[in-house]
Amino acid sequence: MAVESAIGSKDLWSGAGNPVPGLIEALGPDMVVVGAEVERYCRDWHGDVTTGAVAVVRPRTTEEVSLAVRAIRSLGLTIVPQGGNTGLVLGGTPDAPASQVVVSLERMTAIRRIDADDFSAVVEAGAILQDFKDKVEDAGLYFPLALGAQGSCRIGGNVSTNAGGINVLRYGMTRELVLGLEVVLPDGSILDGLSTLRKDNRGIDLKQLFIGAEGTLGIVTAAAFKLAPPAEKVATALLGLGALSDAITLYRRARRDCCDLMSAFEFMPPIAFTLAQEAIPDLAMPMSADYPAYVLLEISGSGLVDIEDLMHRFLEGVLEDGLVLDGVVATSRSQARSLWLFREGMNEGQAKRGPHLRTDVSVPLSRLPEFVEQAEAAIAARLPDCTCVSYGHVGDGNVHLNVLPPSGLSRDEVAERIYTAKHVVNDVLDSFQGSMSAEHGIGRLKKPDFLSRVPATQLHLLTAIKRAIDPSGIMNPGCQLNSSADS
Amino acid sequence: MAVESAIGSKDLWSGAGNPVPGLIEALGPDMVVVGAEVERYCRDWHGDVTTGAVAVVRPRTTEEVSLAVRAIRSLGLTIVPQGGNTGLVLGGTPDAPASQVVVSLERMTAIRRIDADDFSAVVEAGAILQDFKDKVEDAGLYFPLALGAQGSCRIGGNVSTNAGGINVLRYGMTRELVLGLEVVLPDGSILDGLSTLRKDNRGIDLKQLFIGAEGTLGIVTAAAFKLAPPAEKVATALLGLGALSDAITLYRRARRDCCDLMSAFEFMPPIAFTLAQEAIPDLAMPMSADYPAYVLLEISGSGLVDIEDLMHRFLEGVLEDGLVLDGVVATSRSQARSLWLFREGMNEGQAKRGPHLRTDVSVPLSRLPEFVEQAEAAIAARLPDCTCVSYGHVGDGNVHLNVLPPSGLSRDEVAERIYTAKHVVNDVLDSFQGSMSAEHGIGRLKKPDFLSRVPATQLHLLTAIKRAIDPSGIMNPGCQLNSSADS
Repeated sequence: MAVESAIGSKDLWSGAGNPVPGLIEALGPDMVVVGAEVERYCRDWHGDVTTGAVAVVRPRTTEEVSLAVRAIRSLGLTIVPQGGNTGLVLGGTPDAPASQVVVSLERMTAIRRIDADDFSAVVEAGAILQDFKDKVEDAGLYFPLALGAQGSCRIGGNVSTNAGGINVLRYGMTRELVLGLEVVLPDGSILDGLSTLRKDNRGIDLKQLFIGAEGTLGIVTAAAFKLAPPAEKVATALLGLGALSDAITLYRRARRDCCDLMSAFEFMPPIAFTLAQEAIPDLAMPMSADYPAYVLLEISGSGLVDIEDLMHRFLEGVLEDGLVLDGVVATSRSQARSLWLFREGMNEGQAKRGPHLRTDVSVPLSRLPEFVEQAEAAIAARLPDCTCVSYGHVGDGNVHLNVLPPSGLSRDEVAERIYTAKHVVNDVLDSFQGSMSAEHGIGRLKKPDFLSRVPATQLHLLTAIKRAIDPSGIMNPGCQLNSSADS
Repeated sequence: MAVESAIGSKDLWSGAGNPVPGLIEALGPDMVVVGAEVERYCRDWHGDVTTGAVAVVRPRTTEEVSLAVRAIRSLGLTIVPQGGNTGLVLGGTPDAPASQVVVSLERMTAIRRIDADDFSAVVEAGAILQDFKDKVEDAGLYFPLALGAQGSCRIGGNVSTNAGGINVLRYGMTRELVLGLEVVLPDGSILDGLSTLRKDNRGIDLKQLFIGAEGTLGIVTAAAFKLAPPAEKVATALLGLGALSDAITLYRRARRDCCDLMSAFEFMPPIAFTLAQEAIPDLAMPMSADYPAYVLLEISGSGLVDIEDLMHRFLEGVLEDGLVLDGVVATSRSQARSLWLFREGMNEGQAKRGPHLRTDVSVPLSRLPEFVEQAEAAIAARLPDCTCVSYGHVGDGNVHLNVLPPSGLSRDEVAERIYTAKHVVNDVLDSFQGSMSAEHGIGRLKKPDFLSRVPATQLHLLTAIKRAIDPSGIMNPGCQLNSSADS
C-alpha cells in the first residue's frame, strides 16, 4: 500500500483537466468537500495509511446519493463509499487520489422508523451504531450488533462489511439481522428493498449480494433490521481455566446447558491482565492472573427466565467437575462493565505497545486450541523475540491471534517482523482450511492474500457478478477484486 | 400452465433428431431414465400438473452431476433440477418436454459428515430431510428445519427454495442454517464451498445467490449446515383466544417472557377442528371448538432451563390477564404429537375437500389480523359460497389464507373461483405491501404474478445476474424469470 501525501484536489489538479468544478456544478458546493478537510476521510482507522482523493461528496438523501453517483460517473471518476471510516482492512480508504471520490454517508443519519410491534426498524447508512442501539433501547427493544467501534462506526459500513462482534454466537452476523436494504446501484438507480417482512421467498435474494461487498457493487443507503426483546437481565462471569482446550469443552457444555440464552463467550490469555493494566493503570484485578486461559461468559434474557439462577447452577456444575478452576460473577451492571474492561483494555494495551500484527482468522470450533498452539509455536520458533496475544470468540471459531514485536526495534525491523509473522500465521491457517478474514473483510489490505488463495471457479463467478452489476468498474476500485484506475 | 400428455422420450422423438442416444452414450444407461418411468418426475406434488421431459438423469456423485450438465448442454438441451419433487410452485416441474432434461438428485443421499464437536454437518442434496434430522439426532444434536413434507422433501430442494416451516421464528429459514454449499454451475464447473466455518467474511458471499434460486443458477449438490443442541424438553400448548388480534398480543408477550426459547407459535381458525376430524375421524377434541382463534405454542430447550415451569408460569399470567381464555398443555410427547395432529389434519382436511386456492403470503407482523380480516371480507363479498381457512406462523407474519369452493361445483366453476379468489387476495395483499410468496418460492406457478409486480430496477439486476452466471440460459428455463425454450 503506497502512502500518498497528496491530499485533496488542490495539490493534484489545475486548469481544464480539474474535475472538481464539474462536481461542484452538478452537486452544489454544500455537498462537495475539497482541500485540507479531505484528509480525515483518507486516513485509515489505525492511522497507518494516509492517501488522497479528488474530493469528498456528502449527500443528505438517497436521491442525492443517486445524483452524486451519476455526476461522478459522468466525469469519468470512480467512487469509494465510506461510513464511519473505522474499517480495519482499508475497504473505505481511497488508493487512487487522482480518480477516486469518497462518497461519505455521514449526513444520512436518520432513523426512519422503529416499529416495536413488529420488532423491526429502518435506519439510514450514516447513523452511528451506538446511536441506533440507544434509540432502539428507548423503544423497549434491543439491536444486538455490538463491537468495539460502535461509538463511531456507521450502519452502512456494518452492512457492507457484514460486521460481527461479541454477540454473533446468539444473534448472528449483521447479515442475519438484515431484513431489507436500499442501495444506490452503479448506474445511479435505486434498489428499493426496505421491506421489513420476516419471510419473503420471491426468488433470488438480491440484498445478500451487497452485504459484505464492501461497496464494490453499490452504495447501501439504508437498512431494515430485525430487533430482539431487550436483554433485561444479564449475568457476566470471568472464569479461570487450566487450558484453552478446556474453553472449548466449556463452550459446548454452556451451549447445551444454557440453551439459546448465552450471549457472549470470549477467551483471553493471561497476558490480557497485563495489557489491560498498561492501558488502564487503576483497573482492579478481579481474580488471579495465573491461570493459563480465561473465559468471559455472558448469559442474558428477558421475562420469566431466571438468568442469575441459571448462571449460578451452571457454574456450580462446572466448578464441581473441575472444568473451571476459579471465577467471579458480576452482581451489578458496573461490575459486569469492569469485567468487560479487561477485554477492551487488552486491545488498548496492544495498541500502546506500537505497531503489531493483527489477525482475524477463523477455524472449525473444535480445532481452535490446536490452531492457536501450532501458530504460536511457529511464531516462537521463527520470531522468538515477539509476543503472541490470542483471544476471540470461541463459539464462532474466531481468533484474533496478534503478534507484538519487542520494544526498541527500528521501524523497518518492526515492519519486517509483522510481515514475517503474517506469513507464518497464514501458512498454519491454510493447513486448517481456515479463513484469513473472519470478521473484517478483504478491503485493500487483505486483497493480495485473498486473491492468491481464492479458487479459480469462485474468482470467475465473483468477476462475472462484478461485471454484471458494475460494468464500468466505478464502485470502489482497488477493493476486494478489482484494481484502482491509477494504481 | 399447459398440461402436457407427452411423457418421456418415446412419444416425442424418432430418428436422427432424438437426443436420447447421445445422452445415454455420454452418461451411460444407468444414469439416464426414459420411457414411462419419466412420468413420476413430471407430475407435481399436488397432482394438478403432469408434463414431460426428454429424459431424467440421475447422477450418483458431484462429478457425475458435472458430467451430466456438460452432456445436456452439448446436446442443446436444458436442465430442470429436482429433489424430492414436493415443491408447491412447479419450480421442479418441466414445462418444455421437447428440450428439458430433469436432473434428479435422488441418488446423492450421503450424509458426508456430522461433527458434533463443531455443531455442524455436511449432507448431499438428495438426502431426505427426515433422514438427515434422524441421523443428526442420533449424534446428540438437532437440525431445526421442520415442515410438512419432511418425510419426502430433499435437502437440495430445501436449500434451493430457502424452505421455512414451523421453527423459523427461533432458528430462521434454511438460509440461516447454511454454512456452505457445493454447486455445479451451468458450465459444469464445481463451486466447492462446503466450509463449516461459522464466520467467514472473505468478500461477497456467493452461496447466498443459490439459496432460493430454485435451480436457475446452478445445481446444489451438497450443503454444510449449522446444528443446534437437542430440544430435550418440549412444552406444547393449544390455547383458545377471543380474537386473532389477541394472538399478536400474545406472541409479543411470549417473545419477551420466554426469551429465545419459543420454537413455534402457530395460529388456526376454529374450522381447523372440523377439517382435522374430516381427515382423521377418530381424532379426539382436546378442547372446545368455539373460540374465535387458536394458538399452538411450543417452548423448548436443553440443559438447565426448566421449560415446563416456564410454560406454566407464562400461561398462568396470560390466563389471569384474560388474554388466553382456555388451554391444554401436553404432558407427554404423545399428547404433544396429538396437538400437532390438528395442525396437520387441518391441511389434509382441506385437500380432501378438493381443489382450492392455497396462498402463502406474508405481511408485517402487526398487520396480520387486519390483513386476514380484510382479505376474508373481500372473499366473502365476491365469492360468498366459498370458505376461508386462514392459518400460519404468527411470528413470521406468514399466513396461509386458503379459499375452499363449496362441494357440488363443476371443474370449470371451481377453477373460476380459484382464479378469482387469487386475484382478490393479491389485491388486498398489495395494499399491505406483502409478499405473495413467503415460503414456497416463485417457480412456474407464481411467475406471472411475480413478474407483474417486480420493480424494474430489481428485474434488471436479476436478469443481469442470471445472464452473468447462466449466459446460455440452460438452468431451469421457465422458472422464476426466464422462458422455457419451447413454451
